[in-house]
Amino acid sequence: MVAIDLNSDLGESFGRYTVGNDEAVMGLITSANVACGVHAGDPDVMAQTVAVAAQRGVAIGAHPGFPDRQGFGRRYLAMAPLEVEHLVTYQVAALAGFTKGHRLHHVKPHGALYNAAAKDYDLALAICRGVKQFDPGLPLYGLAGSALLQAAAEVGLPARAEVFADRAYQADGSLVPRGQAGAVLTDAKQVAARAVAMVENQAVTAITGETVPLQVDTICVHGDNEAALALVKELRAAMLAQGIEISAG
Amino acid sequence: MVAIDLNSDLGESFGRYTVGNDEAVMGLITSANVACGVHAGDPDVMAQTVAVAAQRGVAIGAHPGFPDRQGFGRRYLAMAPLEVEHLVTYQVAALAGFTKGHRLHHVKPHGALYNAAAKDYDLALAICRGVKQFDPGLPLYGLAGSALLQAAAEVGLPARAEVFADRAYQADGSLVPRGQAGAVLTDAKQVAARAVAMVENQAVTAITGETVPLQVDTICVHGDNEAALALVKELRAAMLAQGIEISAG
Amino acid sequence: MVAIDLNSDLGESFGRYTVGNDEAVMGLITSANVACGVHAGDPDVMAQTVAVAAQRGVAIGAHPGFPDRQGFGRRYLAMAPLEVEHLVTYQVAALAGFTKGHRLHHVKPHGALYNAAAKDYDLALAICRGVKQFDPGLPLYGLAGSALLQAAAEVGLPARAEVFADRAYQADGSLVPRGQAGAVLTDAKQVAARAVAMVENQAVTAITGETVPLQVDTICVHGDNEAALALVKELRAAMLAQGIEISAG
Amino acid sequence: MVAIDLNSDLGESFGRYTVGNDEAVMGLITSANVACGVHAGDPDVMAQTVAVAAQRGVAIGAHPGFPDRQGFGRRYLAMAPLEVEHLVTYQVAALAGFTKGHRLHHVKPHGALYNAAAKDYDLALAICRGVKQFDPGLPLYGLAGSALLQAAAEVGLPARAEVFADRAYQADGSLVPRGQAGAVLTDAKQVAARAVAMVENQAVTAITGETVPLQVDTICVHGDNEAALALVKELRAAMLAQGIEISAG
Repeated sequence: MVAIDLNSDLGESFGRYTVGNDEAVMGLITSANVACGVHAGDPDVMAQTVAVAAQRGVAIGAHPGFPDRQGFGRRYLAMAPLEVEHLVTYQVAALAGFTKGHRLHHVKPHGALYNAAAKDYDLALAICRGVKQFDPGLPLYGLAGSALLQAAAEVGLPARAEVFADRAYQADGSLVPRGQAGAVLTDAKQVAARAVAMVENQAVTAITGETVPLQVDTICVHGDNEAALALVKELRAAMLAQGIEISAG
Repeated sequence: MVAIDLNSDLGESFGRYTVGNDEAVMGLITSANVACGVHAGDPDVMAQTVAVAAQRGVAIGAHPGFPDRQGFGRRYLAMAPLEVEHLVTYQVAALAGFTKGHRLHHVKPHGALYNAAAKDYDLALAICRGVKQFDPGLPLYGLAGSALLQAAAEVGLPARAEVFADRAYQADGSLVPRGQAGAVLTDAKQVAARAVAMVENQAVTAITGETVPLQVDTICVHGDNEAALALVKELRAAMLAQGIEISAG
Repeated sequence: MVAIDLNSDLGESFGRYTVGNDEAVMGLITSANVACGVHAGDPDVMAQTVAVAAQRGVAIGAHPGFPDRQGFGRRYLAMAPLEVEHLVTYQVAALAGFTKGHRLHHVKPHGALYNAAAKDYDLALAICRGVKQFDPGLPLYGLAGSALLQAAAEVGLPARAEVFADRAYQADGSLVPRGQAGAVLTDAKQVAARAVAMVENQAVTAITGETVPLQVDTICVHGDNEAALALVKELRAAMLAQGIEISAG
Repeated sequence: MVAIDLNSDLGESFGRYTVGNDEAVMGLITSANVACGVHAGDPDVMAQTVAVAAQRGVAIGAHPGFPDRQGFGRRYLAMAPLEVEHLVTYQVAALAGFTKGHRLHHVKPHGALYNAAAKDYDLALAICRGVKQFDPGLPLYGLAGSALLQAAAEVGLPARAEVFADRAYQADGSLVPRGQAGAVLTDAKQVAARAVAMVENQAVTAITGETVPLQVDTICVHGDNEAALALVKELRAAMLAQGIEISAG
């Protein structure tokens, strides 16, 4: 039976600042990428998010990011590879402290760290080594076709390929940059159908028309607003209608 | 055979800022309290400190503190107990990420957190719960006779009683506050003899003359300067001359 | 003609995190306490808040707080007086950088710093010195009857007495602590009438019935939610109906 | 009479962490670039550094950097230009709070911010605007021949060209990157003679032999260790022997 994992970024609140619809999103996804108190989140939010995820049966992953709270981890910081390695170990281990002895399900780098690691092989290797130092059997989520997945293979770390159902792809398998025309798809039915096709075909149709083979293990979804939540519901319904199991695996 | 553990605070450097004589101290102690990247230390320093300690056969403990880097964790911060619990879990878990799967040896709260927990039972309970959430078998180091050790007993967490060989004690077993006359002893021979007596008698002579029974499992030593290092060497020699084993236990 | 200033805390957003209804509140108040990028706010939020306040004719004050972003400046931090003095100068000066050469209107300490300074005279003196170092003519806002206002007088700093129309007072002029029965008043009409009486009588009726003389220069209002905004509107209407001018002075 | 300014980075200590030889350096330079509590320094260090500089007759400049304390502002952070503009205003204004009403002498960006602004014109413009927002007459120090000096001219901000006497230059006037052979000169007599020639000729001999015209208003010197201090003394002596005045101008 074909299966797909739906993941989302959660636990991004901080102190008195609350963001996201974690409660609503938890009911729709199979795995959570939980912020680790560096680019977002804090120990209280981490404890709370992990507890709710465990209760709802959502698999718990660590979501490490650059040490830049003001920029929410979305601004690239030129760290040395060894610094990144240690930064990742630190964040992953800290989050694991809240799982009451249960093993983490995965690690997914956040924001600028994720984007840079898709292309920068040295950075990608550093991330993989940081995860491996903590647990050599802990799977990494990375952009399908990215340097991060190549690095995981090189380092011997299990990995899963992530796709974005609401983003256009280029012929080389990379994402059309935000800001370019057609980069983001917003029609829920279209995105849902596209997601189903990606899972079934393990491929995507590029913005220029080519069919691009793509490993599709997990789909990233968002819950920032009502439209985002509606899109996830549509996507779930389309998957189930097609007999695709929704599972963290 | 009588045995004693010598512990010291290490890994307190941060970024480009270097403090302490970690290399020199490592050769004299049996267990290290390693800063966890919140009041001091950072992921790079933690990785380095843990690696050197492992290489030198020094037992590795976590040294969590208040989130106040400028104050080096020495200024009290009025956190709620649940916030402290999560803060401790976070820091202990983060440090454990660098031990390559080896179990931590102990946890010792730092600075103002340690001092406040000696008297504030709710805070002490929160610290114990934070450790227990991570590992219910992980021993806590606390001031001999303190609320922290009572809280550990209440929560069912193993604990060890710490004494200060270079500090004067009051008749109730508490430390004479720094700044008061006679609070700190600096004569190396006197401190060494005092340490031996504390270990052998499991008691200390108060500044007012009384003999105060005290559980003595571990002695805190410092390596900030040459005089401090000389004092530790004197103390080690006195212990060994008396047939006391120096061991992390 | 009798006049009163209405002040509110603004500019508390941070990076991607947005809080408060600054736009709505700006239309109702006469002076803004703008967070200075330490307990809340950041340089972008400060620039934006100051620009909007200037445009709306709202007087701009600095709102310095403890260096504790996670706790939003609401947790007491045991800083030395000289550290507080420098911390206040730093924050006030930083905010003044965004006023395009215009002089700040006032300084109001935030959260735990404000509350501690109401009772701790050394801390209060430190705050006053921190302001005076920056500008000896810059008025300080402090709780009516507090140590902070005494310290301002001692240091020779102009000051204004602040009251809370929606809080009960004790016979000694201090606030009934939150959490105690009757500490917070929520009926908008009652609060508005009470505010008018406070301004006209320069006194408040204590929860125990006594009339307590109180200097009333400025009233603190909030805009966190619709009820808070409605209460401010009610209070404004009651003031104007009574012929009291609403002005920053 | 020919004159030259000698500047150095000071006030980089933080909390309990002490770096640099500020006392020794103060006696040798004419202008200080004082860290502003973001990449290094804190309000206490700023107050202390400004006070000592004023006492020693050293001109006080602000030294803003990226918000990255762990990296000491030496790691590039991909901030938007408007974010940089506000960041610079914030830091410059905060430092000015400690000058007791005296005007700052200059602003020099630090580390990765300085280096990036030498080539990235949008970033350079943002820095200039950040300074101008605070004080349109406040001179900027930038690398001779850099985009930063071009931006200052464009924005109408006064500026001074900085050179490095101990660094090799390329034929296009840029510095030979550290790590390349011959990038850093360490012979004190050679560096001193080179500095004198740079000032007298307003030019430098490139590593490839060409004479490169260069505006030379200020020379950056360091005091990190005894060799660095000895080099500054040698350089001062050579200047004075040649009749060049050492002055902040």
